[in-house]
Amino acid sequence: MSQPSAAILIIGDEILSGRTRDANMHYLAGQLTEAGIALKEARVVSDDETAIVDAVKTLSSRYDYLFTSGGIGPTHDDITADCIAKAFDRTIDVRADARDLLAAYYEKEGKEFNEARQRMARIPEGATLIDNPVSVAPGFTLENTHVMAGVPSVFRAMVASVLPGLTGGAPLQSVTQKLLKGEGDVAAPLSQLAQDYPTLSIGSYPFQQDGIYGTNIVLRGTDSKMLTDAKRKLKEIFGDAAHE
Amino acid sequence: MSQPSAAILIIGDEILSGRTRDANMHYLAGQLTEAGIALKEARVVSDDETAIVDAVKTLSSRYDYLFTSGGIGPTHDDITADCIAKAFDRTIDVRADARDLLAAYYEKEGKEFNEARQRMARIPEGATLIDNPVSVAPGFTLENTHVMAGVPSVFRAMVASVLPGLTGGAPLQSVTQKLLKGEGDVAAPLSQLAQDYPTLSIGSYPFQQDGIYGTNIVLRGTDSKMLTDAKRKLKEIFGDAAHE
Repeated sequence: MSQPSAAILIIGDEILSGRTRDANMHYLAGQLTEAGIALKEARVVSDDETAIVDAVKTLSSRYDYLFTSGGIGPTHDDITADCIAKAFDRTIDVRADARDLLAAYYEKEGKEFNEARQRMARIPEGATLIDNPVSVAPGFTLENTHVMAGVPSVFRAMVASVLPGLTGGAPLQSVTQKLLKGEGDVAAPLSQLAQDYPTLSIGSYPFQQDGIYGTNIVLRGTDSKMLTDAKRKLKEIFGDAAHE
Repeated sequence: MSQPSAAILIIGDEILSGRTRDANMHYLAGQLTEAGIALKEARVVSDDETAIVDAVKTLSSRYDYLFTSGGIGPTHDDITADCIAKAFDRTIDVRADARDLLAAYYEKEGKEFNEARQRMARIPEGATLIDNPVSVAPGFTLENTHVMAGVPSVFRAMVASVLPGLTGGAPLQSVTQKLLKGEGDVAAPLSQLAQDYPTLSIGSYPFQQDGIYGTNIVLRGTDSKMLTDAKRKLKEIFGDAAHE
């Protein structure tokens, strides 16, 4: 079973200015790998309508799933919901169910449910809401695009709501073999191994430890028997240089 | 003086699988901001020729500068240099000066300068080398595109070589004002402030501390007098809720 493909779009000036270090891309990458969905591309764009709309159109049509992070709060630079509506050519307005959720929350908190906060109930026509157990303001799914908050705790909660409903492929598994040889010494045999196992992804990650140059080889694939075979072959090729 | 624009392209399956958390985007973002260059977009793609070539073509033509990270090592999945050559329609081959640098290094290290390591001397026609004081294998600059290593220590050293030679604009400055009000309560006045100061970027970052909801307002711009003005106005608007 082949794996569905996905992209993530991170929205926010604060990431591109270097003020904030994004954490959501790395988190989602790990979650998708476990779910058997292949993350193929990630993009970060600023809080700019044209940039967001263009990226949403491109990525949602190119991949099976698109996940977005950021830009769904109450302030003037939170324009993601409107941009999603525009990208999919939908209308957008305050929706009763989202408004009711937020109204009840702010009443309980003793805070005014003002116009800015009502913006967070703006949902494109035809979307379904994504639950926000942390701070109530919902995300939403429109077609293949899942629109989530940028705040990491909320993003993670929304991913937990969304992922179980998606169709994944066989989860990607990986095995690692540590080699006590530099990357330049393992490159040629690895290239041969990659040709022998065309469906595996083979990565090499050099390290230096106590003055010794080594390389960790990571084999990734969905077929555990093939991974075991390839690792055994790798150990045969490198003999004593294969650690453990 | 307006700021030149830039993009970064991170290349590598290990980032998209979640195995490795990228550090270079955030580092470059901070360095560019200091240099007065506006990072407008970031992308991560896998070690795939079509994906790399397409992204290089798009980003190098859309922005003043493109920086790439990753894929210039000795192994079969290090295809960045060849992809850059293809994107700019240049030939590529082992270049004498790059080969000599590497040959001297491996001789000193007592390691074989084999075919895989010679791949690291493949440089597109017309490029200039970027010094690698950490592990010698050079990066290169072709037209407006700076091709650098993915290993963070090497990436940083290469950024330090490249940045002083680039033309920046006025450095982006920022001032922060802490408000003891929730984001939904500050949104409307902030929107007005953004209209009064159209050349400033105004971001709001909610926080919760000791049970109090507050919002940090970050004003960014290149004109320090305007930033001081805007911050004073912000304090006037919020009175006692403006901290310190």
